[in-house]
Amino acid sequence: MNSPLKILGVNGSPRKANTEILLDTALSVAAGEGFAVETVNLRSNEIRFCRGCFQCHIETENELGCRIHRDAMDDILPKLKDCHGLILASPVYFGQVSAQMKVFMDRTEPLLRYADGPWRAALKNKVGGGLVVGGNRNGGQEATLQAIHHFFLIHDMIVVGTSSDERPGCYLGAATTTHPQRGREKKAVLEDEQGLAAVRYLAKRICEVTRQIFH
Amino acid sequence: MNSPLKILGVNGSPRKANTEILLDTALSVAAGEGFAVETVNLRSNEIRFCRGCFQCHIETENELGCRIHRDAMDDILPKLKDCHGLILASPVYFGQVSAQMKVFMDRTEPLLRYADGPWRAALKNKVGGGLVVGGNRNGGQEATLQAIHHFFLIHDMIVVGTSSDERPGCYLGAATTTHPQRGREKKAVLEDEQGLAAVRYLAKRICEVTRQIFH
Amino acid sequence: MNSPLKILGVNGSPRKANTEILLDTALSVAAGEGFAVETVNLRSNEIRFCRGCFQCHIETENELGCRIHRDAMDDILPKLKDCHGLILASPVYFGQVSAQMKVFMDRTEPLLRYADGPWRAALKNKVGGGLVVGGNRNGGQEATLQAIHHFFLIHDMIVVGTSSDERPGCYLGAATTTHPQRGREKKAVLEDEQGLAAVRYLAKRICEVTRQIFH
Amino acid sequence: MNSPLKILGVNGSPRKANTEILLDTALSVAAGEGFAVETVNLRSNEIRFCRGCFQCHIETENELGCRIHRDAMDDILPKLKDCHGLILASPVYFGQVSAQMKVFMDRTEPLLRYADGPWRAALKNKVGGGLVVGGNRNGGQEATLQAIHHFFLIHDMIVVGTSSDERPGCYLGAATTTHPQRGREKKAVLEDEQGLAAVRYLAKRICEVTRQIFH
Repeated sequence: MNSPLKILGVNGSPRKANTEILLDTALSVAAGEGFAVETVNLRSNEIRFCRGCFQCHIETENELGCRIHRDAMDDILPKLKDCHGLILASPVYFGQVSAQMKVFMDRTEPLLRYADGPWRAALKNKVGGGLVVGGNRNGGQEATLQAIHHFFLIHDMIVVGTSSDERPGCYLGAATTTHPQRGREKKAVLEDEQGLAAVRYLAKRICEVTRQIFH
Repeated sequence: MNSPLKILGVNGSPRKANTEILLDTALSVAAGEGFAVETVNLRSNEIRFCRGCFQCHIETENELGCRIHRDAMDDILPKLKDCHGLILASPVYFGQVSAQMKVFMDRTEPLLRYADGPWRAALKNKVGGGLVVGGNRNGGQEATLQAIHHFFLIHDMIVVGTSSDERPGCYLGAATTTHPQRGREKKAVLEDEQGLAAVRYLAKRICEVTRQIFH
Repeated sequence: MNSPLKILGVNGSPRKANTEILLDTALSVAAGEGFAVETVNLRSNEIRFCRGCFQCHIETENELGCRIHRDAMDDILPKLKDCHGLILASPVYFGQVSAQMKVFMDRTEPLLRYADGPWRAALKNKVGGGLVVGGNRNGGQEATLQAIHHFFLIHDMIVVGTSSDERPGCYLGAATTTHPQRGREKKAVLEDEQGLAAVRYLAKRICEVTRQIFH
Repeated sequence: MNSPLKILGVNGSPRKANTEILLDTALSVAAGEGFAVETVNLRSNEIRFCRGCFQCHIETENELGCRIHRDAMDDILPKLKDCHGLILASPVYFGQVSAQMKVFMDRTEPLLRYADGPWRAALKNKVGGGLVVGGNRNGGQEATLQAIHHFFLIHDMIVVGTSSDERPGCYLGAATTTHPQRGREKKAVLEDEQGLAAVRYLAKRICEVTRQIFH
């Protein structure tokens, strides 16, 4: 194979802090295994709310996804189409992905099976894993990972958890916490050894299955 | 008690369509039982993303919730504080609440136990129920209701499902669908008799338990 | 009121170990607040699998619940009917309640709204909370608590999480872990200070809301 | 390739009824695509409860999984080890897998990463999908599928949902219902056209990804 397989990470945190540290850690593992890696930081992008108009389902001759909004999603859609593995990384806000992550999710509507344009099924068969940071120890990490998996399955992706290392901490994906520090501490997650290990397990697992699928 | 108990409904749909029809149905049941009712339509409000700065946790002498954004949440916080029962109504987008609903959820941070200001624990002991509309029959309605319940429990609220009528359709709350019509059909949910019944069951249940708590 | 309100705890662990320690802790809090408390240890009971025959839905003149099995459930049904608050305590096995807890849940079928006999709706309006112990830190505690809540809502119960103390660890209920020790260590959970605090918060919360409902 | 890839179906229903009809439907699709197929009916097996003794984690020289119980699991473990794709099919009981399915799940403990014997990681990298039947339309199908996925990820499996056909009904897997008939009607699910389509989508998807992984 000439070009390397690519792992894309999407960071749903509004802050340059714990989630970014963790996503960087995961992508470094993937880079170390020979994958091309790239990060989309949603905080530096402005993505407007999906209006539920379904116009993106209608075939277009051009490359547009959303017909309404010209914003950062125009640049993100090609990255989603080009990647082989996808990590969604989100802080846990109110037991779920951040609204920043959710608006990104909602705006992937042109990639659904229902659409007719060039983005249809763009994520199909790609390998997905979730990475989350909660301010409490069991503060919604699992529920957030399940929501990320739900998103993956809606896009006909393939879902993986953590690798088969001894104590994964969480099987669903990389669950980390800033506890007992406050979430406002921007590097608090560096104290979470278990969580950091889980992040590396997840990255390793995504690499492993992505290779199996796309070899 | 002289003033009636109040049920607040929050509508997370960007469209004037199915979710609104259902929330109106639920609130009509509550009004018919003697409750004061009010709707907050998030689509007509502009709510900006929580930045995760935690400034709202610091005690303030004034009535501010968020220190950063002056927007529709300034008007919504008092309504949350004043209600006795709360219905969160959301379309199911990618197996979860809409981003519009999620940004509202994230911006209730000043109401948390961690805050010191006037909004602290404003939702404690209030009665909550969820109402959702999915474009597929089992398209994430349950997951979305569970996310709404998670939000309620984070706010120390009391969670109820549907009343004990014979065939609730969904026990977690009011699960409805626009299937087999397309979600773009703005009144498709009127064909969902089972869902409409569930909406009424939910409303009845919220009234019943709200009375028990606040009598 | 002359007789005290009653909190029932059901222990789904096959072992006399961590789950029992935690449930005892929770019930001690409730006893200290003046509640009558009782524990059902499923490990010492033999409960046979529900066969899905639906015979328990048909009205009976006698006190039978299940028509098929004469086993420990005959003694448990009256306890469920008599309590005001209910704590389900389960170890996390494969990301869910133990099979011992699940067989108990399945055999509460005669209490459903669909039944016609003396046990119909026996749990309606009672206050429920969940208590779980996982061998990994984020090993399914949240998913297990959500399954317990699902059970409560199917029985038209009222669901509460933890009290509004500062760092609840988990809002959904009492999430504890034997990590980093092995689950086989029978008292490992005594090292989990955060989890023990959450157990006390949950108990306090159940007492608080049970009083509000049944005053 | 000389020997065909194999899809194993595990049926968690105590009855010879709807779940079996659906699992047969799924396996017929797989057989039609050239896969070897086999069903394990848990109802005809006696599987005893896991006692949580962790003895199965200790290396054994013989082929034993569980050290305590000699029962149907002795025959099932080799089938799990030999398959390439796995469908867990369960009726929805109290918003979750049946206790019959759960006791099966709990008894796969010797297959975990923590074990040292011949069954360790026996399910790793195999492809899993869920198939469920609920008596209510939104009666726990999603929650049950998520529990099945949790089980798969604990075993380091690869999770797939339904194929990218137009209206999957549920993205998480095959969600079906006996509603509006009663669950006691043993063939009620034959009226659920949407559910039957989802079952075929799921089977197709498992075949597709299993081929990609094991080619």
